[in-house]
Amino acid sequence: MSLINETHDPALKSWVEEANRPGSDFPIQNLPFGRYRPIGVDEDFRIGVAIGNQILDLQGADLIDTSDMNALMALDTAARQRLRREISRGLSKGSAQQQTWSKRLIAQDAVEMAVPCRIGDYTDFYTGIHHATSVGKLFRPDQPLMPNYKWVPIGYHGRSSSIRVSGQTFRRPRGQTKAPDAAQPTFGPSRRLDYELELGYFVGGGNALGQPVSIEDAEDHLFGVTLLNDWSARDIQAWEYQPLGPFLSKNFATTVSPWLVTTEALAPFRAALTRPDGDPQPLPYLDGGFNRKAGAFDITLEVLILTERMVESGLPPERLTLGNAGTAAYWTAAQLLTHHTVNGCNLQSGDLLGSGTLSGPAANEAGSLLELTEGGKKPVVLANGEQRTFLEDGDTLILRGWCERPGAVRIGLGEVRGTVLA
Amino acid sequence: MSLINETHDPALKSWVEEANRPGSDFPIQNLPFGRYRPIGVDEDFRIGVAIGNQILDLQGADLIDTSDMNALMALDTAARQRLRREISRGLSKGSAQQQTWSKRLIAQDAVEMAVPCRIGDYTDFYTGIHHATSVGKLFRPDQPLMPNYKWVPIGYHGRSSSIRVSGQTFRRPRGQTKAPDAAQPTFGPSRRLDYELELGYFVGGGNALGQPVSIEDAEDHLFGVTLLNDWSARDIQAWEYQPLGPFLSKNFATTVSPWLVTTEALAPFRAALTRPDGDPQPLPYLDGGFNRKAGAFDITLEVLILTERMVESGLPPERLTLGNAGTAAYWTAAQLLTHHTVNGCNLQSGDLLGSGTLSGPAANEAGSLLELTEGGKKPVVLANGEQRTFLEDGDTLILRGWCERPGAVRIGLGEVRGTVLA
Repeated sequence: MSLINETHDPALKSWVEEANRPGSDFPIQNLPFGRYRPIGVDEDFRIGVAIGNQILDLQGADLIDTSDMNALMALDTAARQRLRREISRGLSKGSAQQQTWSKRLIAQDAVEMAVPCRIGDYTDFYTGIHHATSVGKLFRPDQPLMPNYKWVPIGYHGRSSSIRVSGQTFRRPRGQTKAPDAAQPTFGPSRRLDYELELGYFVGGGNALGQPVSIEDAEDHLFGVTLLNDWSARDIQAWEYQPLGPFLSKNFATTVSPWLVTTEALAPFRAALTRPDGDPQPLPYLDGGFNRKAGAFDITLEVLILTERMVESGLPPERLTLGNAGTAAYWTAAQLLTHHTVNGCNLQSGDLLGSGTLSGPAANEAGSLLELTEGGKKPVVLANGEQRTFLEDGDTLILRGWCERPGAVRIGLGEVRGTVLA
Repeated sequence: MSLINETHDPALKSWVEEANRPGSDFPIQNLPFGRYRPIGVDEDFRIGVAIGNQILDLQGADLIDTSDMNALMALDTAARQRLRREISRGLSKGSAQQQTWSKRLIAQDAVEMAVPCRIGDYTDFYTGIHHATSVGKLFRPDQPLMPNYKWVPIGYHGRSSSIRVSGQTFRRPRGQTKAPDAAQPTFGPSRRLDYELELGYFVGGGNALGQPVSIEDAEDHLFGVTLLNDWSARDIQAWEYQPLGPFLSKNFATTVSPWLVTTEALAPFRAALTRPDGDPQPLPYLDGGFNRKAGAFDITLEVLILTERMVESGLPPERLTLGNAGTAAYWTAAQLLTHHTVNGCNLQSGDLLGSGTLSGPAANEAGSLLELTEGGKKPVVLANGEQRTFLEDGDTLILRGWCERPGAVRIGLGEVRGTVLA
């Protein structure tokens, strides 16, 4: 179980000075894992840890003997915590490793990042109850929230092959759509292209086929989190999704942030998941001590947009949304993992579980344009006068996340950005 | 495009005599690919071709220089056809290779088979229109076939990690179910466990993200087919599937047959896909010359059951279903592949596309117990007096497939079997 230890000590400083700058995403209390290689060099990606504006080469620093992130993720909890302690000590001010490790640093702006691991299977969940309710209203006005929602952590399998790391650009997808009053569908570019603000939960150690993971053990199987943008073509979705769920409306692109922020790093930012009075208690297999007390992640989430015109005018990205993962999600990552395996389904190291769109209860906490514009009816007006109901060609979306609490050092998840091409 | 050539010549015989026995699944006109290793030997799986009751070791026979089936599958059509010709010539009666290759044979009953390739992503479609109609009636009596069915090849992403080869055994899945009249769900073993008779279409060469495959080119991306059993827990499915589709009801086990029967081998068994009068023509992106003329596969499909009591009494498996893939499917494999990529989604070598349950129009052509028993209302009565509404612990299901046509030598897909444990 993740517990607070000396690696979280707010007094801890690094000899990488940029890591000590207040507001840095990557202070020594964070230490997220990613895969990188120098820009323009065609070599295998290496495993590194972000520290300030630098990356420490873990193999170069003799901390690991693999470049296979999935193997590292499969380490048991004790081994992962030992590795974290070792990295933390070596990067601490005054450490004996400074002289050798400082030669194993590379600047973050000198590298290209990869998707952090090999993702065998990707499952997307639907834990954002405010999102499910708002979207449900648009698709099914008579019954926005299905009767199963408060009992079953609803999820579906997504597409692994089209997951890319931050910086992804993709062409606006084409497909079948049908206007409500049309006699038959037509084929063409999606006109209702949207983003979805999600967290990606990454599986550490897997489980064997036929061997469910209990809610008590689930945290041990969670390696860490990234930001995730689940790009969605709403018009394609509306026509295709009955009765087997979303398919081409979602599988053309999914973008993740490059840094796996570990559950160990997130230990100071856990929260109870509270259910509104009158809601059913989870069935026993989804209800357990730690999960009930501290299953949620208190992570602030932000979405920004940068249009082509804003770039031309030299304007900075503009905020669309500011919310919190903990209050948006109806189910915890541990509950998703346990539910996923309760029938015997096997998860493997590196598998990705998407949280679903994490919209908060307030209008400005909505994690998609579908919600912000009430289904395309009320355009968002940007500071430069541009309007958006759905995404236009050239739009860049930026998702950011961070954790802040009294008594803890702020840590960041970095960002994930992606751009729609014509 | 697959064309009939000398490898299909009905007069062709092999020096492996068992391959010339009428009724063999694996005559020299078939030559399916699989991965095998000797039973009880812990070594890497090798690529072989089935011939009669033997397997030819392709690397041992100097025909390929890899043990990576996905790499072999990614060969372009011309290279695949060259390899097929070379194997066919070498295995032909009187060939110069007989002496050396006969040392590279191993008996099929002396090996353990693997899933034929690394399956990155698995997509399950819903092309069986009679299945979709019958099942639709049970889940949605008011609207059995959705308005999109005859326009969109409906599909959803499945789970790759739990796919196993023929011989799979698995525990009856547990999960949430809710009786229609119950106030809340309960947790326990599925009571409505079922099978689904499908074909698995395997992708050969993939496509880059953002680069759709046209219907004219789709056949070049299809490597071959297997049988596929999409085990399904109907009671879990009914409670969980709204609004994002089937999830835990399907992902606990999927079983495929070990032999990839290539589209080249199937060339003599292609058929036109005819749509009933009055049905809409496919949108242009799903409609093309070869696909229209010969997109379907004329494959006979059979399902048999072998219960524990039958085994104890020494009884053989008993037939539940006999049907034909060509008349059961509303969409061709090429249409599925093109549809899957039309939004830019990338397929990779080895990806699996399930056909969906291939039930014919007649009652005894139904590809699942759900249909055979009309939703569990009318039990199937077996010859020994046993009854089945859904699967019982200890039941073994066997799916078989073969192609027969005047003027062509019969070829078989082999079989896929799987057993339910308590």
